Amino acid sequence: MAGTDKRMIEIGGAAPVVVLTAPQMGENIGAAARAMLNFGLTELRLVRPRDGWPNEKARAMASGADVVIDGVAVFDDLPAAVADCHFVAATTARPRDLLKAVADPADCVREMGRRIEAGQRCALLFGGERAGLASDDLVHADVIVTIPTNPGFASLNLAQSVLLMGYEWMRQTGAGGARRAAAPLETARPASKEDLFGLMAHLEGELEAAHYFFPPERAPVMKRNLRAIFARAGLTESETRSLRGVIKALAAKRRGE
Amino acid sequence: MAGTDKRMIEIGGAAPVVVLTAPQMGENIGAAARAMLNFGLTELRLVRPRDGWPNEKARAMASGADVVIDGVAVFDDLPAAVADCHFVAATTARPRDLLKAVADPADCVREMGRRIEAGQRCALLFGGERAGLASDDLVHADVIVTIPTNPGFASLNLAQSVLLMGYEWMRQTGAGGARRAAAPLETARPASKEDLFGLMAHLEGELEAAHYFFPPERAPVMKRNLRAIFARAGLTESETRSLRGVIKALAAKRRGE
Repeated sequence: MAGTDKRMIEIGGAAPVVVLTAPQMGENIGAAARAMLNFGLTELRLVRPRDGWPNEKARAMASGADVVIDGVAVFDDLPAAVADCHFVAATTARPRDLLKAVADPADCVREMGRRIEAGQRCALLFGGERAGLASDDLVHADVIVTIPTNPGFASLNLAQSVLLMGYEWMRQTGAGGARRAAAPLETARPASKEDLFGLMAHLEGELEAAHYFFPPERAPVMKRNLRAIFARAGLTESETRSLRGVIKALAAKRRGE
Repeated sequence: MAGTDKRMIEIGGAAPVVVLTAPQMGENIGAAARAMLNFGLTELRLVRPRDGWPNEKARAMASGADVVIDGVAVFDDLPAAVADCHFVAATTARPRDLLKAVADPADCVREMGRRIEAGQRCALLFGGERAGLASDDLVHADVIVTIPTNPGFASLNLAQSVLLMGYEWMRQTGAGGARRAAAPLETARPASKEDLFGLMAHLEGELEAAHYFFPPERAPVMKRNLRAIFARAGLTESETRSLRGVIKALAAKRRGE
């Protein structure tokens, strides 16, 4: 897991802390830990977990996110759990009757990125399975985050909410590098313009032999349209060779070779 | 559930179809259906579900997402499942060795929003639990979507991937009516997948007649490579007609001219 840790630091640097208040099932704590690590979040704090800590069900459900489980810190109350934080966002489905700024996940994470860059600590706060966050908990949040869902079918479980906030975090802070590395087009040798022109000359020559360009005055626009298709396809060198093989095979058939 | 349905239409209007290829556990289909409905996606298509359909385990796990389960359509193969679609995005963790554009979820959903606004149909394609998407499946996709995750701990299950794509959809199109103004789409009518499959069947038929696929055991990979080129070109409807004319001109023996 040390390797995991190191790569994460390279990607995201400092990241928000996740705080779960009064979580009940160990399985849900484990699933949340797993969702965190999927998106490079590693610091988990629990306030009064019902079944105590450590919790083997949590570790089993985390299925490999040991770096998160091993680092869990347990607190007696929420103020203690967020004492070292500068900005706390409470994730809740329904905003309560409290005068508090409401943000969507994207805005919340943007603000956290800004603050973390400036050396501040940020926390994402989630309520327990049964009761969610109480008004007494929300009082400690700087902002309430509401994940936009279908109002006719809104319920998300704890791990799903953690997953979505983690995704938003990585989307905004970590996606660039991973994405560039993933692009497969860079590995194949692209066709040169010369390859492409050769392919088109071959095709046009065979089409002329087959009297395709008719009426003759339309030939320039017909050729331009064909070139546009193959230019747009972003062919590789080997694909231009394959297509020349296709043209050759089809034309030979016509000629009865 | 009728009420749910009506509210959803008010929120999101038309939305991407979700296609699951070769899903195994009914529970996972149900969890995916539930994740879809959380974000207002309702149209689910299954390609060769291992345990057949209907599946009571899927319904139980969907816990209330009956509007999705009741509307499931089952197909024998992926081409049939996406025949009426104009743009197909395949979600996969690791891009394979295939020449295909790679997008992140935000870019993919932005493109889908643009196309759906223009009256096109879009599909989000997910692989089964065990094997994911095969290269033969990926060939039918216009773009590969990779959800950015921690490279040291990347695994997301099916329902999580569906959840994240659904979130991205609602984030961009459904939150407070904040649908982005659609960028002007090319005026040309894009080819449907059915148009594209027809073109490829025509080409492959003529190439078979021309004994192009040699040695015979290489035919599947040769066909896949050709399909990848034309899938990537983003053809319009009229371009598929032009290319069929090209194939006909190259291959057809001229009769008595």
